[in-house]
Amino acid sequence: MKNLKHSSVIPMPADAATLLTRSAARITDYFGRLALRYPGAPARLMQAIEYSLLAGGKRLRPALVLESAKACGASNCSSALAAAAAIELIHTFSLVHDDLPAMDDDDLRRGRPTNHKVYGEAMAILAGDAMTTIAFEILATDAADAVAASLVAELARASGPEGMIGGQVIDIDPQHRPANLADLQHLHRMKTGALLTASCRLGAIAAGASATKLAALDAYGRQLGLAFQIVDDILDQTATAEQLGKATGKDAAKGKVTYPMLIGLDASRREAHQALQAALDALEPLGEQAQSLRALAVFVVERKV
Amino acid sequence: MKNLKHSSVIPMPADAATLLTRSAARITDYFGRLALRYPGAPARLMQAIEYSLLAGGKRLRPALVLESAKACGASNCSSALAAAAAIELIHTFSLVHDDLPAMDDDDLRRGRPTNHKVYGEAMAILAGDAMTTIAFEILATDAADAVAASLVAELARASGPEGMIGGQVIDIDPQHRPANLADLQHLHRMKTGALLTASCRLGAIAAGASATKLAALDAYGRQLGLAFQIVDDILDQTATAEQLGKATGKDAAKGKVTYPMLIGLDASRREAHQALQAALDALEPLGEQAQSLRALAVFVVERKV
Repeated sequence: MKNLKHSSVIPMPADAATLLTRSAARITDYFGRLALRYPGAPARLMQAIEYSLLAGGKRLRPALVLESAKACGASNCSSALAAAAAIELIHTFSLVHDDLPAMDDDDLRRGRPTNHKVYGEAMAILAGDAMTTIAFEILATDAADAVAASLVAELARASGPEGMIGGQVIDIDPQHRPANLADLQHLHRMKTGALLTASCRLGAIAAGASATKLAALDAYGRQLGLAFQIVDDILDQTATAEQLGKATGKDAAKGKVTYPMLIGLDASRREAHQALQAALDALEPLGEQAQSLRALAVFVVERKV
Repeated sequence: MKNLKHSSVIPMPADAATLLTRSAARITDYFGRLALRYPGAPARLMQAIEYSLLAGGKRLRPALVLESAKACGASNCSSALAAAAAIELIHTFSLVHDDLPAMDDDDLRRGRPTNHKVYGEAMAILAGDAMTTIAFEILATDAADAVAASLVAELARASGPEGMIGGQVIDIDPQHRPANLADLQHLHRMKTGALLTASCRLGAIAAGASATKLAALDAYGRQLGLAFQIVDDILDQTATAEQLGKATGKDAAKGKVTYPMLIGLDASRREAHQALQAALDALEPLGEQAQSLRALAVFVVERKV
């Protein structure tokens, strides 16, 4: 990691681990009480939803929302907590639907059988559907009036036809197979980048941030999303299934195009570090308040799982 | 139809047909321009979405939204139009997912092959997912600031674990098979009633209606939903596939419990008319302004498809 600006103040990945653990605990606690909101819902539906929501995971998106809000001066912001829960619901719904037999057909996720393996295909579809409506309900009811509609618009746009879902459509279509780096980046900007960028933007919007700060967090989020995906591709090739809690080498086996496949492992690592540098650069307008976001960016690139 | 109050002013079903045609044209026009909002989306995704959105249908829910807003004094209300489009998107997404092989496994819908028959299962899942995010995006961006968050909360609640999706979970679970009329009504209140009631409530909220008017439209919506479902069950048994544009007698074939099955055809028809009367009674506080809603209620019970 050469030439990193702010190098004297960049926290160690250990700090990122601590703050991820802390924000993960808040979100897990939130999800643990989710079924209480729906006493009239079929019990098995709420179980299927909780099965995937409480399966662990890094909770990177909620951490980005909460830390982005904090970087804009809003600690302990209830709108940011609502947005953190909402985006993790959308992310989790996308995993449940992506794992379905008609899509990626995965049996294992985070070291456990996938949702449809436990609850059946129909329930997995409906549990994913419900996670989406719950996400928007939480934003509309729990966020402050002044920002609720903006948060809904932001999350919906990032999830929809030009964001995550659009990216998934491209990803499963053999005709859309990326032929070069530009295609691959376009795919990732939609499939994973849109939601990671939205995490940062949601935090800023929840905090009522200025346009300058929102733009800074937008740029940070886009570079972080790029770095995240390159590292994901690298790990799929180099990590063991035990480390990741899911099958590895599946990208290649399915004919999916990855960064290492297009430019090799070394160049992929260099690209990831360039994106990290750009993410750190983008945070300059936020000064010392963005320290946790710097730690998260370093963590994303250095992570082993 | 005996003892109907307001009988001197109850419009003929022909009036309902006219206003359904008019509101259907507005919604179809709206959906015809939907892809323009998403120039960066994969073309085939937008085609799959349009295939189901532009398949016709009665457009009963949008008509209820628009006429409920009008009954509360808001004609030509852009928030109501957004809500009308949003609820039809949610309704259509539910049809696309319900038709999937893992769910009801239907090949025919509105006289045409179902979405997954044309675009494949993966695309049908994703098209349904995208319709949901689009629905909430439209509410958040197109409705007036003062009502946007309330509209999102209302639609999300009606669609979610205690509403439409919860009802579908019960409907596909053999263990939840309704044993009596109370069970069956509970199922329908969730699966179809929640969204029909929400249609009326959304119109009232969009119009900034008083609590009294909102309560009146809530009661109207619940009775209309009940009537709608009883008639649906009757038609499944008595109408031809050609009339309905979908397979008939499927409820019985699948072991699904219906009103005629539990109480017979004649008693079912009586129940439907009692619900109609209750719906008309509920509209009293709205006076002459609710004339179109009266016509729609009559239409729902008298319809042959």
